[in-house]
Amino acid sequence: MTTNKTPVTVVGLGLMGQALAGTFLRNGHPTTVWNRTAAKADALVAEGARLADSPADAVTASPLVIVCVSNYDAVRELLDPLGEVFDGRVLVNLTSGTSEGARQTAEWAARRGGSYLDGAIMALPTAIGTAEATVFYSGPQSAFAQHESTLRLLGAGTTYLGTDHGLSSLYDVALLGVMWSVLNGFLQGAALVGTAGVDASTFASIAGPLTGTVRDWLPDLGRQIDKGDYTTRDSTIDTHLGAMEHLVQESESLGINADLPRLVKALADRAVADGHGGSDYAAMIEQFRRPAGNRP
Amino acid sequence: MTTNKTPVTVVGLGLMGQALAGTFLRNGHPTTVWNRTAAKADALVAEGARLADSPADAVTASPLVIVCVSNYDAVRELLDPLGEVFDGRVLVNLTSGTSEGARQTAEWAARRGGSYLDGAIMALPTAIGTAEATVFYSGPQSAFAQHESTLRLLGAGTTYLGTDHGLSSLYDVALLGVMWSVLNGFLQGAALVGTAGVDASTFASIAGPLTGTVRDWLPDLGRQIDKGDYTTRDSTIDTHLGAMEHLVQESESLGINADLPRLVKALADRAVADGHGGSDYAAMIEQFRRPAGNRP
Repeated sequence: MTTNKTPVTVVGLGLMGQALAGTFLRNGHPTTVWNRTAAKADALVAEGARLADSPADAVTASPLVIVCVSNYDAVRELLDPLGEVFDGRVLVNLTSGTSEGARQTAEWAARRGGSYLDGAIMALPTAIGTAEATVFYSGPQSAFAQHESTLRLLGAGTTYLGTDHGLSSLYDVALLGVMWSVLNGFLQGAALVGTAGVDASTFASIAGPLTGTVRDWLPDLGRQIDKGDYTTRDSTIDTHLGAMEHLVQESESLGINADLPRLVKALADRAVADGHGGSDYAAMIEQFRRPAGNRP
Repeated sequence: MTTNKTPVTVVGLGLMGQALAGTFLRNGHPTTVWNRTAAKADALVAEGARLADSPADAVTASPLVIVCVSNYDAVRELLDPLGEVFDGRVLVNLTSGTSEGARQTAEWAARRGGSYLDGAIMALPTAIGTAEATVFYSGPQSAFAQHESTLRLLGAGTTYLGTDHGLSSLYDVALLGVMWSVLNGFLQGAALVGTAGVDASTFASIAGPLTGTVRDWLPDLGRQIDKGDYTTRDSTIDTHLGAMEHLVQESESLGINADLPRLVKALADRAVADGHGGSDYAAMIEQFRRPAGNRP
């Protein structure tokens, strides 16, 4: 059987690597796999994947090489000994890590003559290959363009972020941070109303729509921040602070965790100390742009 | 001119009190107003409001008396000297405060023979009387039912929460807490990607849809919490922690504020210490239900 579909190699067959390789296979791409523990390839081999003899064999088998292992150190340990095997290939690193790790790995790949894309998967393994999966890529646009149609098989939310290799990791943690903030804000609220016997489900039915309302403010908030225009059409930070004090008081006097409320208030207190009491909440960006101890 | 519409009194004519009284007036309700500084009533009087001579005159003018002043102490200072004027009236306190203040004011009102509803306005003065305004009420259901049609004029989101007078204040701060969490999560992310030159608007275009996705998880999360069922269909807290470490590392090494990321991670660390490393994120509710220092 021959195919004109790009051969793909997947190195690292944890749950995520298996999901990636399985998606390429099911879409008719000749797929080569490698894993330190070969047994993890069994199901994929049964579906038609070729198990490479070695990392070098795996890398040289395809023009598109995807690596998804435990961390960036593991990527370098695995690929560094291989020598000059990357020339003309596109190496896509979907391992989780920091932007610094991504930029260093990009420099390393450049010395080896390979095109390097760093990526971040914003999905569970079970969502790979579906409309729900978002995968970010950053690095040379030409490398992304060359393999875009193949990479897009992994998820409808395939997004190229820019040439800076650090962008995928940055967006990854930035968006996870948004996720944890929404979840923690909900949990704090559920704990508060829970002291009066209100179910978390009942609270969700009111907190959900509010979260949607606040989400709808984000584009305007982003524009205000980009313009550095902190004039407010609604509440000043001083006004927010009055209500933040109630949140801290309630949390403390009801005996629930008050760490998050205290941090919310401390950040606003610092904005007021910086002269932003009369500013829009957008001025809070300045508190997030520098460590707590640094005054402007 | 006669009307069969319920006469309403509004005590306290800050921006919010003026918006409340103005809405009743424009809907044809005989409206009596009072404010310590009488001049704040001028515009309303020009629109047809009657300015009461005294707080006692104001309260006795209507079966529905709404108070919206700076804090609960001000409510008591104003109304305590009036004696037995509340009998048969419904007093609705829309002043911001804590649940304890609301419950104490309810006891005070009960001793005076008045029906008492505590409320919380989740809207700016400019939104009062529109589809955008949400106003919460808690206290005796009969008192709410008696004046529901009049109170509903203040906003399409008029919601009766239950008999516990503390509920309005609790929901108020709980939902504001959700709001600040969403905003701060966004600002943290904008600061992170901002280090790579990404606009806050660009980040909003990706963070907005994600916020909507997380919002859609809240009903299920609420049900899990209510059942105390922490089995996970996706990521364990251990898995979250690995990514939280990246968020802390990125924030610290890029020189932005890391307080929020550190708190996110500290809360998850405590859940792992409590034996919830293999649990769903729903298990985090236990961290929010007690002060940080309290171990189970």
